[in-house]
Amino acid sequence: MPELRRDPIVGRWVIISAERSGRPRDLSATPAQSLAVTLCPFCPGQERLTPKEILAYRPQSAEDNSPEWSVRVVPNKFPALQVEGDMGREGLGLYDRMNGVGAHEVIIETSDHTEALADMPVKRIENVLWAYRDRILDLKKDLRLRYILIFKNHGATAGATLEHSHSQLIALPIVPTSVMEKIQGCRAHYEQKERCIYCDIIRQESAEGARIVAENVEFLCLTPYAPRFPFEMWMLPKRHVASFEESQRTQFEFLASILSEVLRRQDKVLARPAYNFVLHSSPLQERTGEFYHWHLEIIPKLTQVAGFEWGTGFYINPVAPEESAKALREADLSI
Amino acid sequence: MPELRRDPIVGRWVIISAERSGRPRDLSATPAQSLAVTLCPFCPGQERLTPKEILAYRPQSAEDNSPEWSVRVVPNKFPALQVEGDMGREGLGLYDRMNGVGAHEVIIETSDHTEALADMPVKRIENVLWAYRDRILDLKKDLRLRYILIFKNHGATAGATLEHSHSQLIALPIVPTSVMEKIQGCRAHYEQKERCIYCDIIRQESAEGARIVAENVEFLCLTPYAPRFPFEMWMLPKRHVASFEESQRTQFEFLASILSEVLRRQDKVLARPAYNFVLHSSPLQERTGEFYHWHLEIIPKLTQVAGFEWGTGFYINPVAPEESAKALREADLSI
Repeated sequence: MPELRRDPIVGRWVIISAERSGRPRDLSATPAQSLAVTLCPFCPGQERLTPKEILAYRPQSAEDNSPEWSVRVVPNKFPALQVEGDMGREGLGLYDRMNGVGAHEVIIETSDHTEALADMPVKRIENVLWAYRDRILDLKKDLRLRYILIFKNHGATAGATLEHSHSQLIALPIVPTSVMEKIQGCRAHYEQKERCIYCDIIRQESAEGARIVAENVEFLCLTPYAPRFPFEMWMLPKRHVASFEESQRTQFEFLASILSEVLRRQDKVLARPAYNFVLHSSPLQERTGEFYHWHLEIIPKLTQVAGFEWGTGFYINPVAPEESAKALREADLSI
Repeated sequence: MPELRRDPIVGRWVIISAERSGRPRDLSATPAQSLAVTLCPFCPGQERLTPKEILAYRPQSAEDNSPEWSVRVVPNKFPALQVEGDMGREGLGLYDRMNGVGAHEVIIETSDHTEALADMPVKRIENVLWAYRDRILDLKKDLRLRYILIFKNHGATAGATLEHSHSQLIALPIVPTSVMEKIQGCRAHYEQKERCIYCDIIRQESAEGARIVAENVEFLCLTPYAPRFPFEMWMLPKRHVASFEESQRTQFEFLASILSEVLRRQDKVLARPAYNFVLHSSPLQERTGEFYHWHLEIIPKLTQVAGFEWGTGFYINPVAPEESAKALREADLSI
């Protein structure tokens, strides 16, 4: 059973999931894992290589776990958390622990092994977003769960271990520290001004224009004023909504469209980089409606200065966001 | 002039240092920089390739910037911060900025290009620690500076851009968020219990023993209870001291000795990995004497899951700290 442990100094919970690796010594032997696999478990026809599917979009006539599908959600074969079991919260002297109760799922975004999310038609990207929503709504019923993290690692250097395009969902019995910090920052701003800070950012950025990457009726994509990473981007819904899964139908359409555009701009300017995106949505059991505002953070993996930033929480960014926004905005997608 | 910008939501300052890179497009062209250089600017005889030295340990008879030295400190040729200039603090609507005033220095740990810190005699490691202290004491006089970060990137995958063994010092006009979180956690514990939380950790870990890697009269090296990374280690002085630079002479001797031992254990178990270490010492202008406790965090670079953790502040660690401590503790250094 994986275990959640809390750092007594900063209150950060981490998952200790020893089942996910072999013996410690194995780690040193796999510094640069190759993504080449002989048989891809995410390809149609190989459905037996994954655990049984949780959700799939397929023709009504087709059977579960059969090869006809456009989006498919399965449990992670090496889960960092498990749905079964009790919480087992306990203190050990200074320390706090609980069992690794939660969910770890894989959203297979396409049946085509070679197709990247950026290359997919907008309509199919929208289906991936609907799959996120459907899974969140289902998992929300489990009152042990406090936060759902949806993210994508694209490319080996961004942490992907399989090439076939997919995203991941992790449902947690705790709220991650970085999310709590955001919530607290948003709440403090709201208490002082009775306005959502992300709505304020949207207004200021729209007026200034220098950090805008793309825009449509419902969404704004910008490079943040104080980005940690070169070409970091935030995708913000213009309408104030705290939770991703409460978005309206048209918002999913417009999000798919702007996400497709922005990923293609990124591919154009940065020569198809590895990247991560992370969906930041409201915690499940908290009232954040007035002051939190869901968003998607996109971070291309360009620099190799990991360790220092990890160790310090301090970031040196060699590219001004005005410069990266300009390059992304001006990229010619027609050629 | 580099610029410091503050994220309005979580309050995190980042350095935007566009002078450090070329145009944005250059980033995509250098994913895996080679460390091979024809002429190493850190080697004796190449002193003219670095900015003029700030400090060097050399025979009394030798001249400044001459090739006879054992430890040499120079300004970073591509500094993320600059000593000259005023702070230029200002608000821009929601946002806050200031000029990138500070210092960015390189501590060249050895005159031997091929020698790693782990391979150096203990006495020379001690000299490196004295150089850290001497630089901190000097920079502390500048009252604009609020925090000094000392860290080491060893190996290309840990962010080193030059092979010749060195560490870095960054002096900042702000306190990094992650340091503030620790300070706040330590203060909260002290206010509740009137004890230092790190002293409490030392007591509990000494009694349990399962996470201890190495120990001597003055220091304890352990794997923390809730580590973010496999084989993460903390080096703690047993005597309560908030600031590294206030350590006593014997503490530098014992720190050099245990650091040498632990780096060699790490090399043995993990096949000479790339790694980072970061010195966590008290902020410069704050009273933290009772409740903060300086320490050194050592993080081997073993996994490639950077982006996700960056984006979320949430960590999945595949190796239990009891397991990594045992492997490190039991490594046979005699063969």
